[in-house]
Amino acid sequence: MTTQDAHARAENATDTAAAGKALGSHKGYLQGTRPDIRVPVRRVHLTNGKDVTLYDTSGPYTDPAIDTDVRRGLAPLRENWIVQRGDTEEYAGRELRPEDDGIKHTSPRGGLRNLDAVFPGRPRQPRRGRNGASVTQLAYAKRGEITPEMEFVALRENLSAEFVRDEIAAGRAVLPANVNHPETEPMIIGKNFLVKVNANIGNSAVTSSIEEEVEKMTWATRWGADTVMDLSTGRNIHTTREWVLRNSPVPIGTVPLYQALEKVDGKAEELSWEVYKDTVIEQCEQGVDYMTVHAGVLLRYVPLTARRKTGIVSRGGSIMAAWCLAHHKESFLYEHFSELCEILRTYDVTFSLGDGLRPGSIADANDAAQMAELDTLGELNRIAKAHDVQTMIEGPGHVPMHKIKENVDRQQEVCEEAPFYTLGPLTTDIAPAYDHITSGIGAAMIGWWGTAMLCYVTPKEHLGLPDKDDVKTGVITYKIAAHAADLAKGHPGAQQWDDALSDARFEFRWEDQFNLALDPETARAFHDETLPAEPAKTAHFCSMCGPKFCSMKISQEIREQHGATMEEVEAGMAEKSREFAAAGNRVYLPLAD
Amino acid sequence: MTTQDAHARAENATDTAAAGKALGSHKGYLQGTRPDIRVPVRRVHLTNGKDVTLYDTSGPYTDPAIDTDVRRGLAPLRENWIVQRGDTEEYAGRELRPEDDGIKHTSPRGGLRNLDAVFPGRPRQPRRGRNGASVTQLAYAKRGEITPEMEFVALRENLSAEFVRDEIAAGRAVLPANVNHPETEPMIIGKNFLVKVNANIGNSAVTSSIEEEVEKMTWATRWGADTVMDLSTGRNIHTTREWVLRNSPVPIGTVPLYQALEKVDGKAEELSWEVYKDTVIEQCEQGVDYMTVHAGVLLRYVPLTARRKTGIVSRGGSIMAAWCLAHHKESFLYEHFSELCEILRTYDVTFSLGDGLRPGSIADANDAAQMAELDTLGELNRIAKAHDVQTMIEGPGHVPMHKIKENVDRQQEVCEEAPFYTLGPLTTDIAPAYDHITSGIGAAMIGWWGTAMLCYVTPKEHLGLPDKDDVKTGVITYKIAAHAADLAKGHPGAQQWDDALSDARFEFRWEDQFNLALDPETARAFHDETLPAEPAKTAHFCSMCGPKFCSMKISQEIREQHGATMEEVEAGMAEKSREFAAAGNRVYLPLAD
Repeated sequence: MTTQDAHARAENATDTAAAGKALGSHKGYLQGTRPDIRVPVRRVHLTNGKDVTLYDTSGPYTDPAIDTDVRRGLAPLRENWIVQRGDTEEYAGRELRPEDDGIKHTSPRGGLRNLDAVFPGRPRQPRRGRNGASVTQLAYAKRGEITPEMEFVALRENLSAEFVRDEIAAGRAVLPANVNHPETEPMIIGKNFLVKVNANIGNSAVTSSIEEEVEKMTWATRWGADTVMDLSTGRNIHTTREWVLRNSPVPIGTVPLYQALEKVDGKAEELSWEVYKDTVIEQCEQGVDYMTVHAGVLLRYVPLTARRKTGIVSRGGSIMAAWCLAHHKESFLYEHFSELCEILRTYDVTFSLGDGLRPGSIADANDAAQMAELDTLGELNRIAKAHDVQTMIEGPGHVPMHKIKENVDRQQEVCEEAPFYTLGPLTTDIAPAYDHITSGIGAAMIGWWGTAMLCYVTPKEHLGLPDKDDVKTGVITYKIAAHAADLAKGHPGAQQWDDALSDARFEFRWEDQFNLALDPETARAFHDETLPAEPAKTAHFCSMCGPKFCSMKISQEIREQHGATMEEVEAGMAEKSREFAAAGNRVYLPLAD
Repeated sequence: MTTQDAHARAENATDTAAAGKALGSHKGYLQGTRPDIRVPVRRVHLTNGKDVTLYDTSGPYTDPAIDTDVRRGLAPLRENWIVQRGDTEEYAGRELRPEDDGIKHTSPRGGLRNLDAVFPGRPRQPRRGRNGASVTQLAYAKRGEITPEMEFVALRENLSAEFVRDEIAAGRAVLPANVNHPETEPMIIGKNFLVKVNANIGNSAVTSSIEEEVEKMTWATRWGADTVMDLSTGRNIHTTREWVLRNSPVPIGTVPLYQALEKVDGKAEELSWEVYKDTVIEQCEQGVDYMTVHAGVLLRYVPLTARRKTGIVSRGGSIMAAWCLAHHKESFLYEHFSELCEILRTYDVTFSLGDGLRPGSIADANDAAQMAELDTLGELNRIAKAHDVQTMIEGPGHVPMHKIKENVDRQQEVCEEAPFYTLGPLTTDIAPAYDHITSGIGAAMIGWWGTAMLCYVTPKEHLGLPDKDDVKTGVITYKIAAHAADLAKGHPGAQQWDDALSDARFEFRWEDQFNLALDPETARAFHDETLPAEPAKTAHFCSMCGPKFCSMKISQEIREQHGATMEEVEAGMAEKSREFAAAGNRVYLPLAD
């Protein structure tokens, strides 16, 4: 496919984004202390006149007042904030090369190409910290500064800006925001905030295309993805990423090793620090907000996987293990880690320290290899923080329920409470095609116990590349897990959503119940399958139980007919209870007292 | 619809059942001490020559050697066992009446009907304990007897028959097996056995028909439902139930109150002990294996629900609450509970003591109403056990994760470890259309913590009556939850399944991976969506990562190329570890020692 084809076809993605405009809610904004701090929210207008305000990840696409165009990209919301800080500079940037898109000089299909034309939107030059300065939210927080990004996040989470700053300064939270991705709406990842969800997209050598990936990104954020990782491994990696970044309202993560491997034709042993570093800079300049780096896969840990049931199941982990063994040398990622920190801090790229040795089966959970790597991630986390680089730690994979908590507890201890970012975990291996569910169970639990961000798993896991439906199913499943975790953690305000929906349910406000649902369209469609007529939308029953057996209807009638009596009895019981407490909560008085 | 129509259309259900014969596995049997004890298993023949044996709930339908016919019903597997015990007698039974099928004498559509013709299969008379004798598995277990049913279950669970007997005798497990449902393959419900799954079927006044319900039953058991509850509330309740029972290889549960309410035209206040008792006997004679009885909803508890967000959400609970308030009298189910025990023990019908006051929203979880009723269920459990009636206790509904464990712990304490049988719990209210997932999370957790059987929730919960697809999705989701719980409980043998599948995955035995999956058809279909060609079934990658990025492939290559080195290093590390341990696990020797 040519770049021109990609452009033409990527435009189709606009339709999808626009379709998001009618999701049973209205776009609203919370106003900050300066005019350009406007935090998007989803407002559900209820039929009883009340409003429910929900967190909104869908970006400008769901604002009918904004005319979006994937060829132009999103407006650079944060640009002024970045420029006004005065600590960055624009520069010429690394020269783009055909191999950035997986095209060899000798390729009969590609040949030399002008990669300046990868994206038709506004011209831009990359930006970086002046003279190697740390321009990270961590550096600002350590200095006690509250950035517009922090204020934005504070409004978004209904917490104070000081709290946001302190959590970032302590390394307990990250605010991924590359200076070259000014299109992002700031968000925060940390255990004392709402649990976040990441959705993976990306083509593979076997299937998928640029426009599909842009569409998957807008689609994933429409359903609630807080960040998106572009895990492309096929051709057009650079161009795909450019389109995704310029159109993404959420932070974008990548695994630079994938592109580096493409540059050496898929031969792990030919990887080198130079190729890797070049790729990292390429992606920093494009605006990638966080990067998975598998620097904890050390030569001496690889033998610990020898007797595993499923070996090394992380792509990055297996590539680095192959490199270490082929060269009988320590990982170049580990050896050059400080140098990597010095690069990332000049763009404010956040580390996601990869768990290359995560377990790929129930049998391998919490084993020596996994825990050894975690200790090294703890070491790297300290180094990164010392360099002012924001850092989160990746975890799990396949872990049975009784072994999940140990993962969080140990990570929190070893990594000084750095945000934990886990895949699943999958709580059993027996259900390919349903691994969004096997892992949604583990994700909810690990979120409750302190994981800050959950990496989704789609129904296609282990079987193939997810399509749009799979992305939606994965995101919805993980939004459920994240919200269940917020409830269990007692996150302030989390239960308001449940309460609003339950009120609507009990009062047979069907339209409100649909509009408050995580997926209004499907909830409405399921109801209408059996009772499509308009009067059913106000009926005091549904087809599940029918009119005579609707417990909510009977329950309401009880209140109407016996409400006064019930309150009387209840008051009487409360009085008895007070008397009992006043008497010392004892059924029998002790003999001698 | 006439009975004749129902007969004709119900035959279609045979096709579905037959379709179950090719599920990537073969029917096998474990032979007991007598020729007629043959325990069905699902044997998956792997391409590497090994066999994996899995628990099988699908009944004779998946045995190609057995010619099933829904008009004839299943063979009465347990009949000889029941007859040979010599403690039961056949008798004329209660006379069938048109109102048993919801047809009034004056009904213009129905009129008087010959209900003898409700099922065309073998003629049968109901059976009961001679002279009111207890013919329950609990009574036999208390006397130290091991019945063929217990031996069957012991083989099925790979445990000793003595253990099975002792768990039943202690009231920690139930083996639901009405003497009038000899078609069942015995199964056991208790925390020291595999976690079980119940699927609800049943028509409502709004939709559905007899043949659909028979088909849903065979469909649910094909995917792994251990019991099925027929919750029909519309017309043809009696006939639907007869068809379901005569064709069901798993225990059937009901809520007799639903049919009783139909007999009094849906007017809760017109219910009476007499109508209820008559309905219970009708269902005992048909062969219902367990009955939900909401005898814990006491008059004085109803006011405790007055300030709830969603009131009373159990159908049975709301009906009984309405009755209690209308009459200002204590529940007739509570008042006549001992009499009910005396009926149930002569058929070996198991109590499922209903949680009529379960919470219907996150806000109402673990509240005073719920816990007050649980205390009463504990009292009723003791009475039932004293009458030799097997008993389990129903629980949850909507409960956030951090409040789940309290439910099991308290139930186990109050109810002397009687099996807990819970709906979900749903861990959030915000996702109608995905409540199989919101509840699958809670179900896995509550199963881990000691719940013996999980009542499934389908995607249609709160929205409409589930269809066949919903039934399958609900069952698969709950099989995942149950198996995840078995793993977390360390149930002996549970992990073999995961290990076999993970081995197949690591060795790229795709066919084995599909056949070992909970849902082989969908796993295969998902894989084939992107790589349909036959060679892809042996390829060392799938479309998710493509050939260059397949971690399992790289991991295998590492083992092939560096296996010897890795084992050497590993052995060296183990040696070092032994030396370290021998030196007292101290890094530095203490100064004075």
